[in-house]
Amino acid sequence: MHKKVAVILSGCGVFDGAEVHESVITLLRLDQRGAQVQCFAPNIAQHHVLNHLSGAEMPESRNVLVESARIARGAVKDVREARVEDFDALIVPGGFGAAKNLSDFAFRGEQCEVQPDVLALAKAFAAAHKPIGLICIAPSMAPRIYGAGIECTIGNDAETAAVLTRMGAKHVDCTVDEIVEDHHHKLVSTPAYMLAQSIAEAASGINKLVDRVLELA
Amino acid sequence: MHKKVAVILSGCGVFDGAEVHESVITLLRLDQRGAQVQCFAPNIAQHHVLNHLSGAEMPESRNVLVESARIARGAVKDVREARVEDFDALIVPGGFGAAKNLSDFAFRGEQCEVQPDVLALAKAFAAAHKPIGLICIAPSMAPRIYGAGIECTIGNDAETAAVLTRMGAKHVDCTVDEIVEDHHHKLVSTPAYMLAQSIAEAASGINKLVDRVLELA
Repeated sequence: MHKKVAVILSGCGVFDGAEVHESVITLLRLDQRGAQVQCFAPNIAQHHVLNHLSGAEMPESRNVLVESARIARGAVKDVREARVEDFDALIVPGGFGAAKNLSDFAFRGEQCEVQPDVLALAKAFAAAHKPIGLICIAPSMAPRIYGAGIECTIGNDAETAAVLTRMGAKHVDCTVDEIVEDHHHKLVSTPAYMLAQSIAEAASGINKLVDRVLELA
Repeated sequence: MHKKVAVILSGCGVFDGAEVHESVITLLRLDQRGAQVQCFAPNIAQHHVLNHLSGAEMPESRNVLVESARIARGAVKDVREARVEDFDALIVPGGFGAAKNLSDFAFRGEQCEVQPDVLALAKAFAAAHKPIGLICIAPSMAPRIYGAGIECTIGNDAETAAVLTRMGAKHVDCTVDEIVEDHHHKLVSTPAYMLAQSIAEAASGINKLVDRVLELA
């Protein structure tokens, strides 16, 4: 019985897309645990393109779905093609793409909106009581998906946590190697590179998140 | 005693750059084993840019060093800055970038040349008798680094193996979860996505390669 898991990517690169390490660690753990994985991404332009060496904005446009295909080795679909009935769980890695492309949390904070296709899919998983795993800054979408009272973590950054609290979340501080679970809603979150000082640290929490999401599925 | 390892990336994406999974698995295993890692890449234009969703060539130009920074979270340096005396070992992940940007093996086969800065660094490691790990298609550089008689693997593809043989290599067929070692030259190679059908399969061989390179260092 292979669990089927949808993974939503948000580009390819920590500063303007999906965090590459978090995404690959998620895919690796899912495969090692025997899950069947399908990657998805919204078919939209990236908010912007950043030179990851200099930090400067680059005068070009890239598509979130097309760039996500670099992480997925081509095997990624438009998130509008995802049907909740085909999957047992959903996982969203972090990176600024989760807060710039999947939502506008990075720019609008508590006034943020989640990209409509992503929001519709995530809400469908929540409504079907199927588990969702949100990594790094991706839990900033939790209040929009579940509404007020949802329990989640983005690590221990007081300012970011306060924004989530104003959005209605119940924020729980969490170390890099741990997860926070909202047992009623089956939402699992972990700080990853919100706190990680190394790739192995990021993996410690992500592996726990993947394992727990698969247990709940 | 932390072993210091240089990793050469070749862009970001299997079809025109460094294979993302192979690169991240390499970085993860190195960190989990306590190695200190510095990523490098040549500061040159990519041979071309491919849309990883459609396979089509895109009418734009990207820089290998700048795109490699997406995998390295910004922590990548020009390969010309790498000094062999600062490191105990060198590892090169695969992806077409290893055969399109680090060399022109993908286009010229046995007539290929390795990018001069990459070749100079790799030859310096070989001359210092420091171990090198080459993953996936990256072993196609081995005859240029070490000369005739070098023992390595690119898996079991007869056509590619024949090209390496004509270049002077002693090719040894290898399964995805194993490594081939030239004991005299301290060169370790593994097929990874030359054979892998999944990310966990790729990791099985890469983890062995990383472990063996660190043992030799």
